[in-house]
Amino acid sequence: MLSFAVIGTGALGAYFGGRLAAAGNDVHFLFHSEYAAACSHGLSVHSVKGDFCIPPDALNAYDNPSRMPKCDVVLVTLKTTANDILRDILPQVTKPDGIVVLIQNGLNVERHVQSLIASSLPSVLVCGGMAFICAYRVAPAVVNHDDYGTLTIAAEPSSPNFAHCVTLAEQTCQALSDSGVEASFSDQLLLKRWEKLVWNIPYNGLCSLLNADTGALQANPDTRALVRDLMTEVVNAAHAGGVGVRDEFIDRMLSFTDSMRPYLPSMTLDFRAHRPLELEYIYRQPLLTAPALMPKVQFLYQSLAFVSERDRVSR
Amino acid sequence: MLSFAVIGTGALGAYFGGRLAAAGNDVHFLFHSEYAAACSHGLSVHSVKGDFCIPPDALNAYDNPSRMPKCDVVLVTLKTTANDILRDILPQVTKPDGIVVLIQNGLNVERHVQSLIASSLPSVLVCGGMAFICAYRVAPAVVNHDDYGTLTIAAEPSSPNFAHCVTLAEQTCQALSDSGVEASFSDQLLLKRWEKLVWNIPYNGLCSLLNADTGALQANPDTRALVRDLMTEVVNAAHAGGVGVRDEFIDRMLSFTDSMRPYLPSMTLDFRAHRPLELEYIYRQPLLTAPALMPKVQFLYQSLAFVSERDRVSR
Repeated sequence: MLSFAVIGTGALGAYFGGRLAAAGNDVHFLFHSEYAAACSHGLSVHSVKGDFCIPPDALNAYDNPSRMPKCDVVLVTLKTTANDILRDILPQVTKPDGIVVLIQNGLNVERHVQSLIASSLPSVLVCGGMAFICAYRVAPAVVNHDDYGTLTIAAEPSSPNFAHCVTLAEQTCQALSDSGVEASFSDQLLLKRWEKLVWNIPYNGLCSLLNADTGALQANPDTRALVRDLMTEVVNAAHAGGVGVRDEFIDRMLSFTDSMRPYLPSMTLDFRAHRPLELEYIYRQPLLTAPALMPKVQFLYQSLAFVSERDRVSR
Repeated sequence: MLSFAVIGTGALGAYFGGRLAAAGNDVHFLFHSEYAAACSHGLSVHSVKGDFCIPPDALNAYDNPSRMPKCDVVLVTLKTTANDILRDILPQVTKPDGIVVLIQNGLNVERHVQSLIASSLPSVLVCGGMAFICAYRVAPAVVNHDDYGTLTIAAEPSSPNFAHCVTLAEQTCQALSDSGVEASFSDQLLLKRWEKLVWNIPYNGLCSLLNADTGALQANPDTRALVRDLMTEVVNAAHAGGVGVRDEFIDRMLSFTDSMRPYLPSMTLDFRAHRPLELEYIYRQPLLTAPALMPKVQFLYQSLAFVSERDRVSR
């Protein structure tokens, strides 16, 4: 049986790791500030697909990676702003022939983490994890899951360790599916990353900058046009980077957002809580691909960098 | 001797009209909400170039244009958002062979007002007035003037009434100069309008959207770059419209802003006070010139239109 580690047990880690644990898999959760709460009352998820709780005596909870076993599969659900700590954590929790799945947003995050562990874990494959889910913490170790809930794990066949790790990635998807999570493996990491950026780049930034939810942006003709303009720039940049996101994907994302309940993206929640913003991988890295094709994305990045820095200084 | 009307006696009307009146010119001021204050204690200006007061018995104050005499020169210092009322006001206060000077910001505002009075005042020339001044109201009919204080009056020789009105415009500049205001006439209205937009488009919008003064935008490398990008788009659009704003003008405006005390542009004051924003002539009209060359200006306009509409609905 595969062993799993969950690094950074927030909403996503609690949901995906929790589903695996509830189905009887061997899952080890690294907590930070919520360790005491998890030890005292376990991990609870109120889910549209059925509530579940991992009680304290069944929960493998840790507050220090040095006490964790080395696992086959490491699910990382940290914010990307904290990724530098993975240099220390991953060697302690990952088997030498394991895989790491970054359930995070943005471009080139796998490349960065792969470089952090290049010398300590040379045979490990760092995969991307594209979660599509509305879930959020409501209390320490208590999570609400309101909608959706799928996970795509992806890697590029050109990655150094792809060949011997792909089976493990596919087995992870199978374990998730067996636990009630719709999961699939894709060998087109860059396509999946850019597709997710088509949504994340406009909504994460604009909702933060304009202090608005997705519903307000969709309803106003000026911001609706601006969202479409930003999406178009992202698709054009993907093409320039050799990634074939289809043009129809823009209309699909606009219609999809119309169908969602009005939503505040994670960056907006971070902004309101005065936490660092995930600007590096959601904005700066994509912008490096084709800056001349992305003037409006650049405007958004420049503005977010300003408000984020002002907030950092005032903290 | 020329007669002057000042329509909308706010900070700019009080300063320029007040200087003319203090020097003995025949000036008639139309007030709105501050009429009673002006009648009771006159018009006071605290100025870096010397304080002055027009006492009640020397102040030609009106609260209704129908009681005003028809004047040779009408100085309009309304916000452009109120310009539609000029259709009714101007025929009551302007001699048939007079001129109107719009001391306002933005592009094509003269064309619009000229069209409003085309049938009522067919021989009147509508000129532009480019004020370069730091002045603001501190109480009803009391204005502070902190810095600068020049006025450029401009018209295009191709305007229908240019030939017979240009002398009047030049005499107005002379009267201002004789009253202690540095004033000059230019026959390049579009050049002067676009040059002013090089400053107004970035700072008015960004200070409002990012809730920051000019000093904060200049100090942060991301917003400083964004200001330069916006200025560059404005210069490129001017060129596309056949107007030769020189590229060096961008560096001049950046250096000039560095030398200013940190400043909140008028749009930001309007935004904070929940007043309508001057988006039509500062953003939408310039954007019509060359939309494809102005993606960042368009982003700014789209965002300002959103926050402005949200504010309007909540009023």
